Amino acid sequence: MTQGPSPTRTSVLLTDLYQLTMVTAYQELGLEQEAVFEFFVRRMPAQRGFLMAAGLEQVLDYLEALRFDDADLRWLEETGRFKPAALRRLAALRFTGDVDAMPEGSVFFADEPVVRVTGPLPEAQLVESRLINLLNFQSMVATKAARCRLAAAQRSLADFGMRRAHGAEAALLAARACYVAGFDATATVEAGREFAIPLTGTMAHSFIQAHDDETAAFRDFARIHPRSVTLLIDTYDTVRAAHKVVELARQGLPIGAVRLDSGDLAALSREVRALLDAGGCVDTRIVASGNLDEFSIETLVNGGAPIDAFGVGTRLDVSSDAPYLDCVYKLQEFAGRPRRKRSSGKATWPGRKQVFREMTAEGRIRTDVLGLVDDDLPGRPMLQPVMRGGRRLPQPTLDEIRVHARQELETLPEECRRIVAPLSIEAHHSPALLVLTARVDLEFP
Amino acid sequence: MTQGPSPTRTSVLLTDLYQLTMVTAYQELGLEQEAVFEFFVRRMPAQRGFLMAAGLEQVLDYLEALRFDDADLRWLEETGRFKPAALRRLAALRFTGDVDAMPEGSVFFADEPVVRVTGPLPEAQLVESRLINLLNFQSMVATKAARCRLAAAQRSLADFGMRRAHGAEAALLAARACYVAGFDATATVEAGREFAIPLTGTMAHSFIQAHDDETAAFRDFARIHPRSVTLLIDTYDTVRAAHKVVELARQGLPIGAVRLDSGDLAALSREVRALLDAGGCVDTRIVASGNLDEFSIETLVNGGAPIDAFGVGTRLDVSSDAPYLDCVYKLQEFAGRPRRKRSSGKATWPGRKQVFREMTAEGRIRTDVLGLVDDDLPGRPMLQPVMRGGRRLPQPTLDEIRVHARQELETLPEECRRIVAPLSIEAHHSPALLVLTARVDLEFP
Repeated sequence: MTQGPSPTRTSVLLTDLYQLTMVTAYQELGLEQEAVFEFFVRRMPAQRGFLMAAGLEQVLDYLEALRFDDADLRWLEETGRFKPAALRRLAALRFTGDVDAMPEGSVFFADEPVVRVTGPLPEAQLVESRLINLLNFQSMVATKAARCRLAAAQRSLADFGMRRAHGAEAALLAARACYVAGFDATATVEAGREFAIPLTGTMAHSFIQAHDDETAAFRDFARIHPRSVTLLIDTYDTVRAAHKVVELARQGLPIGAVRLDSGDLAALSREVRALLDAGGCVDTRIVASGNLDEFSIETLVNGGAPIDAFGVGTRLDVSSDAPYLDCVYKLQEFAGRPRRKRSSGKATWPGRKQVFREMTAEGRIRTDVLGLVDDDLPGRPMLQPVMRGGRRLPQPTLDEIRVHARQELETLPEECRRIVAPLSIEAHHSPALLVLTARVDLEFP
Repeated sequence: MTQGPSPTRTSVLLTDLYQLTMVTAYQELGLEQEAVFEFFVRRMPAQRGFLMAAGLEQVLDYLEALRFDDADLRWLEETGRFKPAALRRLAALRFTGDVDAMPEGSVFFADEPVVRVTGPLPEAQLVESRLINLLNFQSMVATKAARCRLAAAQRSLADFGMRRAHGAEAALLAARACYVAGFDATATVEAGREFAIPLTGTMAHSFIQAHDDETAAFRDFARIHPRSVTLLIDTYDTVRAAHKVVELARQGLPIGAVRLDSGDLAALSREVRALLDAGGCVDTRIVASGNLDEFSIETLVNGGAPIDAFGVGTRLDVSSDAPYLDCVYKLQEFAGRPRRKRSSGKATWPGRKQVFREMTAEGRIRTDVLGLVDDDLPGRPMLQPVMRGGRRLPQPTLDEIRVHARQELETLPEECRRIVAPLSIEAHHSPALLVLTARVDLEFP
């Protein structure tokens, strides 16, 4: 569905300066042997019993397209920071490495590698900043959207968050991440075009206010857009507006839904539902919006509020209670030797790792073991090859990713699925990984 | 400094579906008279004594470039949601209105219009989603960056947040907003190119780990990039690494700075400073990073930690304690009549408004009055013309905006400048505004 270049395509200069400084140093020093970096989350945010992987497709797009074009190189030259020979090497740089990753939509936990990048050190180093930028954001939003999905059960969910998402790309990728995690639609038109996500929309208060009379506004809207009439009824007085809706329906206007955007949504939805039903509008749905998140959705659903669909905006698109993941991309092996960082509170596990996931007979996660790739352990290996030699392997469609995400949510133990005060799973460490870690500490004292 | 189209330029389809639904309805209904919308923040976030306006330049870029191109129109046609006549009207749509705004870098408070858009209703409506998207993000980040500037006093500040910013545009615009608010530099290369912001960078742990020996890594880096050597010294053991730095300096290596990225920054900076001074490295600066924000910076500065520069990342770029502003863009007048929304908890003040700011003799803000544009009140009118008939008026450069921001911070009363538990200013309302509000409520019962 894309028209022209993807709106998520960015310049290779969207990176931290130190990547360029280090890459040119590696090249000059001949430090170009194979490096292994892993992307993982160090600690679970509060109120998260699981995380959902998302953003891999954009990472693969980025890696395949990675290059310094003439304008990039000219600009770098003008900065005076790089030698001509270094710029010539940058001009030739492409990503030629391998990527292994958990499929998008997979659930994962702290310390577990989600993406592993293997390639010559300069290439694998250079991609760090943008790779984290893409995976952090979509995984964070997919996680919050998945929690909204769990809270909403079978009710419809739509992403309304574009206006307070952090810029253009965040709005687009939030819509994608929400759809991956089980949302039904987005209000963001460009996301509909770019990712073929179903679109939805209602009307704003300004539409009502631009009319001298609320009933006239409702009638005008229904006449012009008869196929998808959702009337916003809280501009002046929600209950009085609901009476007007019933009267318009009596006159034959097709009113698919009404939207509540303020006030006590539990009480108002009951009152409006009763009015609609009494007026014969039993098929008119109730959409709720306004500062919603998984916590308020769960409260409304558990309280039996007769709400058919939720429009979730700001708190979802910015993941307001956890607006970042403590995620990193760390060098675990270089030139055939495992490496380890021991910085206070930020130590890492060395070597090329794999997550082995064992299931119960009921299909729930029993345990995750963090091991080395050549460990012979029971359980499903979570990281799979997705790119070889800089070319992506066949990837699932967005709808296939969505199905996988739904299946993954079903594997979560109850305590991980909880909305309030969930528990997470702590991966065990394989004996081989523990031995390797001790050995690396002896080698780099 | 821009090469080719701005990376913040987006399709007109980056909007909410309901804008297109409403705009086509307005056009079909002939509701094209002059409308006045105002952008404002309804409530101050916790721990914010002021807000700083930013993002106007990108709003003006967006308004000037606004159009539906052939690909947009074809795609909209394919959705089957819009009539051919509606699409023809969209094809001709341009933004021809006026914009009045507080200059970027201005400080403002709840309820105060920051941007006022006046134009034919369809045009002024269409731009809502992206205008909020741009102003919310940059104002939020500029505010947090300004608080970091207040906490850091004269120390250097750099934006290190790209990797956990919410996508590409957020990273770029965060760098810009930080620079507006008084940061000295950014690590984000593309922001350096796009906005001519000074760049800065150090090295990552992977550079150290890629060497078998930390001293060798330091020496290699200093040899290749002798003009800007900041050595990261916390990969294994910070104090032992500081000894190595002193030894290398004795051997004649130019070591501009060391960076601490973990552990007790107050204690480590003291210990490292003492080691450096004892070793004759009195000019070697100490850079600190790692989960910093205005709160930790204030604690370090007040505690006398000998830190010369702070690299501030994630918490700044996502404004982690306030990741969105409760900001809106509301219709205040249409076809010559003031309008008002009365939704529960979200009521607005009608009419075309102005903020009149009175100062004390010492140049601090005494009071802000929210009045009507034709009120005759003392004080500086904060909103100024910035666009007329769809064309921008001459605008300040980014460095001029930065100077204005610094002057604005100096006008804040002490209680607004406080980092912990600041107080904000509540605008008074002019008598004329109060009378108008009562009158509108009588007209739209």
